Amino acid sequence: MARDYDENAWFNRLKVGVGQIKTSTGDFPGNVEKVLNAIKKAEELGCNLVVFPEMCLAGCPAHDLLQRPDFVQGQISAMRDVASRVGRIIVLLGFVSRKKEDRIEYLHNAAALCFDGKVLRVIEKSSIGEHSGLEERHYMTKGELAPPVRINRVAVGVLVGDDVLRPGTCEQLAEQGAHVIVAPIASPFRIGATDSRISRIAERADEASVNLLVVNRVGGQDELVFDGASFAVDDYGERIWQAPQFEEGLFVVEVSAGNRPAALPDDLEQVRGALVTSIRDYVHDCGLSKAIVGLSGGIDSALVAALAKDALGPENVLGLLMPSGITSKESTDYAESLASNLSIKTESVPIQPILDTYIGSLSGHFVGKEPDVTEQNLHARIRGDILMAFSNKLGHLVLCTGNRSEGSTGYATLYGDMAGGFCPLADVPKTLVYSLAGHINSRTGQEVIPKTIIDREPTAELRPNQTDAESLGPYKQLDPILEAHLDRGLGIREIVDSGLPEEATRDALRRFYCSQHKRHQAAPGPRIVSARTSSEVRLPINSHFDAWFKFSE
Amino acid sequence: MARDYDENAWFNRLKVGVGQIKTSTGDFPGNVEKVLNAIKKAEELGCNLVVFPEMCLAGCPAHDLLQRPDFVQGQISAMRDVASRVGRIIVLLGFVSRKKEDRIEYLHNAAALCFDGKVLRVIEKSSIGEHSGLEERHYMTKGELAPPVRINRVAVGVLVGDDVLRPGTCEQLAEQGAHVIVAPIASPFRIGATDSRISRIAERADEASVNLLVVNRVGGQDELVFDGASFAVDDYGERIWQAPQFEEGLFVVEVSAGNRPAALPDDLEQVRGALVTSIRDYVHDCGLSKAIVGLSGGIDSALVAALAKDALGPENVLGLLMPSGITSKESTDYAESLASNLSIKTESVPIQPILDTYIGSLSGHFVGKEPDVTEQNLHARIRGDILMAFSNKLGHLVLCTGNRSEGSTGYATLYGDMAGGFCPLADVPKTLVYSLAGHINSRTGQEVIPKTIIDREPTAELRPNQTDAESLGPYKQLDPILEAHLDRGLGIREIVDSGLPEEATRDALRRFYCSQHKRHQAAPGPRIVSARTSSEVRLPINSHFDAWFKFSE
Repeated sequence: MARDYDENAWFNRLKVGVGQIKTSTGDFPGNVEKVLNAIKKAEELGCNLVVFPEMCLAGCPAHDLLQRPDFVQGQISAMRDVASRVGRIIVLLGFVSRKKEDRIEYLHNAAALCFDGKVLRVIEKSSIGEHSGLEERHYMTKGELAPPVRINRVAVGVLVGDDVLRPGTCEQLAEQGAHVIVAPIASPFRIGATDSRISRIAERADEASVNLLVVNRVGGQDELVFDGASFAVDDYGERIWQAPQFEEGLFVVEVSAGNRPAALPDDLEQVRGALVTSIRDYVHDCGLSKAIVGLSGGIDSALVAALAKDALGPENVLGLLMPSGITSKESTDYAESLASNLSIKTESVPIQPILDTYIGSLSGHFVGKEPDVTEQNLHARIRGDILMAFSNKLGHLVLCTGNRSEGSTGYATLYGDMAGGFCPLADVPKTLVYSLAGHINSRTGQEVIPKTIIDREPTAELRPNQTDAESLGPYKQLDPILEAHLDRGLGIREIVDSGLPEEATRDALRRFYCSQHKRHQAAPGPRIVSARTSSEVRLPINSHFDAWFKFSE
Repeated sequence: MARDYDENAWFNRLKVGVGQIKTSTGDFPGNVEKVLNAIKKAEELGCNLVVFPEMCLAGCPAHDLLQRPDFVQGQISAMRDVASRVGRIIVLLGFVSRKKEDRIEYLHNAAALCFDGKVLRVIEKSSIGEHSGLEERHYMTKGELAPPVRINRVAVGVLVGDDVLRPGTCEQLAEQGAHVIVAPIASPFRIGATDSRISRIAERADEASVNLLVVNRVGGQDELVFDGASFAVDDYGERIWQAPQFEEGLFVVEVSAGNRPAALPDDLEQVRGALVTSIRDYVHDCGLSKAIVGLSGGIDSALVAALAKDALGPENVLGLLMPSGITSKESTDYAESLASNLSIKTESVPIQPILDTYIGSLSGHFVGKEPDVTEQNLHARIRGDILMAFSNKLGHLVLCTGNRSEGSTGYATLYGDMAGGFCPLADVPKTLVYSLAGHINSRTGQEVIPKTIIDREPTAELRPNQTDAESLGPYKQLDPILEAHLDRGLGIREIVDSGLPEEATRDALRRFYCSQHKRHQAAPGPRIVSARTSSEVRLPINSHFDAWFKFSE
């Protein structure tokens, strides 16, 4: 249904700049500069309003830093600094405000409306959100819904953060005459979240018959990736404007009759965008520019290297080959051809001499003991040490190559392949790793990730002829079991009743509950499929799963 | 003030057994057996009531397992199992109850009153506690305060968990005629917590003029250590009975006029008890019996070895010496004499040949680069690998030897000295490490920890003539800075105004905020001084401290 927009539509009277920017937690001088640059650009483009996301100046999530008076004061000073430099353009800027009542200080998630060197008004969030990763309730107090303000003859309602999703808020502002509601938010990505956010907010607009402009944060911070994808819907809830996902910039809201914004990319491309963003921002927020990846010739390290190349550029990614005596020629060949496809540099440090020295040093202590997982883990730990040595010597960040299926079953070596600063695939199930590899090839129309790598049987190659499937069963079976338990909360009985094999289910869950000690020491990675970030999942390390499960049957 | 107790005092009519026991999270069969054994013992001793702690059957903290219906059902089955075997003795047993209202299930922190094969009554906690480590609010719903029950002509009020601390609860039960209030709790240790718990509860008893018996959980679970120290106070708030701290057992409440229970041990002995308990329970809950400690000849590893010996017995502790070319003869001598004092076995794996092989393998890649922290970290990581190899081969748990001062400043090597399953001193500041070492010597009247170790200058010995003080300043200065910031929330300005030097303060805080990535991957350790466990502290990994601090000045 194409609608004609009359000349009085809000976007014809207000030229709005959307500051879909990535700010860094605590980097107030840097954040101020970024905001001021975006304001300048908006002015140059003739905007009369420019909107920035929720908690724009503090960075997000700031977590316990919000309990530090100096941190809170710093971002208030940053807001005042921005306001003092604002000219004849109205700026709406997310920040954390502070109010004293009865000698107690309360923080509010808020937005400042600035104009001509002054803060005209501070608008508070009127609820405490529950959304994952931010944990507002620990830090914030809820404020009052503010009535609309008039900007260039348009009545603009402001809803901070997920106030826009709270039933009744849009109606209330619409009743107070708002022509359009502007919502600065900071809503993180996970698969499906962007689409569901747009459709839920569109529904609110439709219910309240009000126009809505949503300005979302973009960029990675630790385990969260904000996807941007700021958008506008009309009072029927139809999308009339859309900013790109995972792209930083000052975008201008431009609506033309009959010209609908394009659909968002498909899930795989969205996930690729999230992973690339998270790698780039994590590396840069560490003050670094380069990353190093151990290339095994397997699919996980191939995908991480390809994503790192997209994030940092091929000149900033180093692939490290660390063959042992049992590394097959194929593994080395595949790794080399991947690196060549990606145009990234490689170096090779054979680990056998180091392994032999360890085994020689330990043999006198382990007399009469058969080789076992000890020696396998040593392979992995030597590689971890070498990666970290390169990291220390060259200042590259080590990207770990573990995926969610391995992490959930503890099929990984602590201080070995788990060593590193950031783990891009930490929340990507192995079956999704395969899909992403295929997607990367098909979107470029090239065999970026060699087909031989995609087709080979998964192996940790820590002993001859090892395969992942011997230990874990096929991933096509493991991933649905993990998904049923971890994401949908099903118990063993329900999983088996849904058609998955009982023995594999018990084994997967046993592996999950017995490997919490490994996840406790894992590197952070971006949240992609899980409802909660890894820091929000709280499990006892020793939980005697076998005992409790048997008892409850 | 000694009081005379009349013959009708509650403890003359009720012979109460206190089941101050350690249960394991999720080990329902094991927990049931432990409870039944304690009940049997209480019966043999002629008790007519036996009381067990809060969440006795689930184990505590159970965290997100409480969101699993099978887990919750398991411990309800366990409760019913216990109840069905109870004879002519009244049993009060902490568990998690489940109630359905409008098709939604709610959990309550509760206690079951069992007698003669039946559950007579379930008493719910009437509030949601905020106390650190348990996070009730995520899982539980508050119930109703229950009126007293009559047992052997005594009106017994029951308050579950920290209901006993909530203003008004004791008064309310007293008004309803309670002669005594029985409070099953699960209250974890940290320095000063035991004394403050007793005095706060005693105050409630005094205010409400009611007798109180508090039954606390004992034992370690992950980062929490419950200290037991169950106790009774009279209606003036005077302590009339006291169970030991950190000791598991079935204790009988026996009160005699004029015979006051002894004071609790001093802080150092309490901390020693907490650390020993946490090591023992962590190792045992992992299904292991032995531990391994890397002995450097320094005070941290000496203290960890001494505590491990107290926890597990000397036959279950292996000390591993891993000298390099720069390890001084003193370090080896001191480590050997410590081991001999403790009667623990040692083995020695010199790391120089392994280090040389690494350096040989890497030299071609690092041409023209000077030796730096890379080589220092390699020393530490080789030691980590060797400890883990022993752990894998022999099934010993690796105890890390890092302390809180190091952890807070990132003065530790990831995957190096940070490698291990449990870190007993993770929350023990270095200055307290010294006090504990001195305490261990003075309580035994022997030089268990050689004076030479206590007196030597602290060094990581990762390069020649290195000292901790070069990097961190003296610990006597560092620890008060960390304590001011981390425990009292003071900012740089306030710390400096309190008399500590500005440069050292800035440096310590900068080190703290720049090392969150290390703590993110650290092994768990028992909470000793901090208000929150490490999982409860949430800091962004990249937080640009220098930027935000400068901006807020």
